[in-house]
Amino acid sequence: MKKTNFPTAQDVEAAFYEALEAGDVDAMMEVWSDDEDVVCIHPGGPRHCGYADVRASWAELFSGSSRLQVQVSNLVVLSGMMLVVHALRESIAVKGDQRPAVAVAATNAYMRTGQGWRMILHHASPAPQGPAQQRTVEPEAPKVLH
Amino acid sequence: MKKTNFPTAQDVEAAFYEALEAGDVDAMMEVWSDDEDVVCIHPGGPRHCGYADVRASWAELFSGSSRLQVQVSNLVVLSGMMLVVHALRESIAVKGDQRPAVAVAATNAYMRTGQGWRMILHHASPAPQGPAQQRTVEPEAPKVLH
Repeated sequence: MKKTNFPTAQDVEAAFYEALEAGDVDAMMEVWSDDEDVVCIHPGGPRHCGYADVRASWAELFSGSSRLQVQVSNLVVLSGMMLVVHALRESIAVKGDQRPAVAVAATNAYMRTGQGWRMILHHASPAPQGPAQQRTVEPEAPKVLH
Repeated sequence: MKKTNFPTAQDVEAAFYEALEAGDVDAMMEVWSDDEDVVCIHPGGPRHCGYADVRASWAELFSGSSRLQVQVSNLVVLSGMMLVVHALRESIAVKGDQRPAVAVAATNAYMRTGQGWRMILHHASPAPQGPAQQRTVEPEAPKVLH
């Protein structure tokens, strides 16, 4: 039984990344529409389809002891009335780990249901390290405009 | 100046894969919404944002002489009134090349505009080889139900 009534797609997205960082399966599945057609693709992994399969994929991902830290950026919002698509960049690091964050390209789709907005699709895939990571690489000489 | 008025999202998708196989940049860009917020991610590549940047990415992809052959399957349709999201599997081969097709997970989003439906997002990423490719691997003994 769902309890949360997310008033906007942005609220669903905030709860999604909070649940991802917490590694909390119940909180994660509160975010998803309870539907046979929901789709979830973790980076490089197979497509999970349907609420039960998507839940199992998150349960497996959260079964380890390490927790993830996710920073999102470069958000593009594509809005319909009942359906919203977000394209964004995730920068994912393991908490307490010194290795640099990994860049992930994500497409998230949200639908307005009888109980507020819910996630219906999460497609994440490995992305080239972009400007956020390359910022530490300085050009050999600074560019000067004349 | 756009000429085609695609009556459904499915019509846009058919034209998209036709243009992809033909390697035809003009036909490809006929499919896309002429918008600053359109998003295109080729497998493993960076995110291209905006009509001009998306066009340049396809022009580069089509600049070689080899043509692609694309079979789509496993379609999931997530429909709003103004916006539709398709999640599907692409099986991509190079025409005249004997190597097996590569599996790609794709999320395509379409929006209803004043000139019919248009593509607004294409997110493609490498996928594990699934059942379509594994079909050639036979189990050691056939399963018999009693």
